[in-house]
Amino acid sequence: MTKVKTVTASMIIIGDEILSGRTKDANLTHLSLWLNRMGVQLKEVRVIPDIARVIQDTVNDLRQCFDYVFTTGGIGPTHDDITAANIAAAFDVPFVQNEEALALLLKHYGNEKISDARLRMTMIPQGASLIRNPISAAPGFQMENVFVMAGIPVVMQSMLLDLEKRIYGGDRMLSKAVHVFEGESYFAGILEEVEQEFPHVSLGSYPFFCNKRYGASFILRSQVEADLEAALAILKLKIGALGRECFDGEAEL
Amino acid sequence: MTKVKTVTASMIIIGDEILSGRTKDANLTHLSLWLNRMGVQLKEVRVIPDIARVIQDTVNDLRQCFDYVFTTGGIGPTHDDITAANIAAAFDVPFVQNEEALALLLKHYGNEKISDARLRMTMIPQGASLIRNPISAAPGFQMENVFVMAGIPVVMQSMLLDLEKRIYGGDRMLSKAVHVFEGESYFAGILEEVEQEFPHVSLGSYPFFCNKRYGASFILRSQVEADLEAALAILKLKIGALGRECFDGEAEL
Repeated sequence: MTKVKTVTASMIIIGDEILSGRTKDANLTHLSLWLNRMGVQLKEVRVIPDIARVIQDTVNDLRQCFDYVFTTGGIGPTHDDITAANIAAAFDVPFVQNEEALALLLKHYGNEKISDARLRMTMIPQGASLIRNPISAAPGFQMENVFVMAGIPVVMQSMLLDLEKRIYGGDRMLSKAVHVFEGESYFAGILEEVEQEFPHVSLGSYPFFCNKRYGASFILRSQVEADLEAALAILKLKIGALGRECFDGEAEL
Repeated sequence: MTKVKTVTASMIIIGDEILSGRTKDANLTHLSLWLNRMGVQLKEVRVIPDIARVIQDTVNDLRQCFDYVFTTGGIGPTHDDITAANIAAAFDVPFVQNEEALALLLKHYGNEKISDARLRMTMIPQGASLIRNPISAAPGFQMENVFVMAGIPVVMQSMLLDLEKRIYGGDRMLSKAVHVFEGESYFAGILEEVEQEFPHVSLGSYPFFCNKRYGASFILRSQVEADLEAALAILKLKIGALGRECFDGEAEL
């Protein structure tokens, strides 16, 4: 019996501007690929509005269900940035000025350019540890298994650098791709056979239309490299046995 | 007292390929903007994996909380397309071949090109009404307040055409934008004042960095047009009173 260690995460994207359609989220894909490199699988994402009760309930719901929770958005200097206060409320801890955050912002802005609005970004739930922001100083923070990050992609990405030593992953998900230039339904039977033969491999079929040709990408994903390779080999044999050609592809999950 | 009629929706994006980072979702923004034109506000989005239990629980959770639920993904011809069967399970109704769906697929493919895999797409929860797919024939379906659609953006978008007469909206959310070329924190005080003065207006502040200049977009959203216009006028006056210039912008929510 193959033993696999799986570590899971969920993501909470906080912001009216994502739900309204004004802003396209650009963090999900980046976080997911980064997590996979850390050996962590993103298992659920929720996009929620800037509403106190919803933020608290969602955080408290997900932090029980997954090993890690990552939030993006709502930690800036204006009145609509309510994430940090509601993380404190979710954990039922005081929301206080953090001395380390204050020092970081004073160093970045200087005594003259600091303002009440910017000081808002020094308010952190008691007991949290900071996440460094090399772009614009105002930190994110970690509260138990919840990581609270900025929504601006370049800032969010820079914050992940500070998290590499705080995330303990399991067996990485690996992936392989095979492409065919024919509708996926033709291969439905063999895809099911391969997935049933390899319980540690999941197999997704994704149709595409490219250069006026229909086709499909078959993506094999597994935490067990030997099974992944074996499933790939058998899938390619079965495609050949159907009299069809297939092409190896790059698979980033 | 201004009376406002609010109709809400949630969206469930179903697919391992979104969570793994392989595929970027392209449906959230389109659905949100379309819903807003129908007078419906998207209030929550969940991205979930192709796991039976998770699909059922998520659908049953959200259909109680929102007026409408829209799902995308997982209704194709292969083994990994498990959405339809799990909607049937969520509603505790039989999962059966739908005669109308069969007729549509036979017409599209002809008797010769129909296959067991394609016939899979004629299986629909009992009691559902179909959603037409003018692109590739295989229909989506509506089960009470849940609308089950394809994940491929062009197909999903074409399905929305069939829903225009089935959605009953409330007062549309309207939006206005003002841009400034200075960090948002400078305006934090007046933003809060404006939001407090107009309970029917929400005001979001979104920083940007464009052509080497820092700035912020202030987005006002309201279902009450008079309040929106009044809040906009007062915000612009307050920006002027701070000695700063602002610029009207397009605001698509």
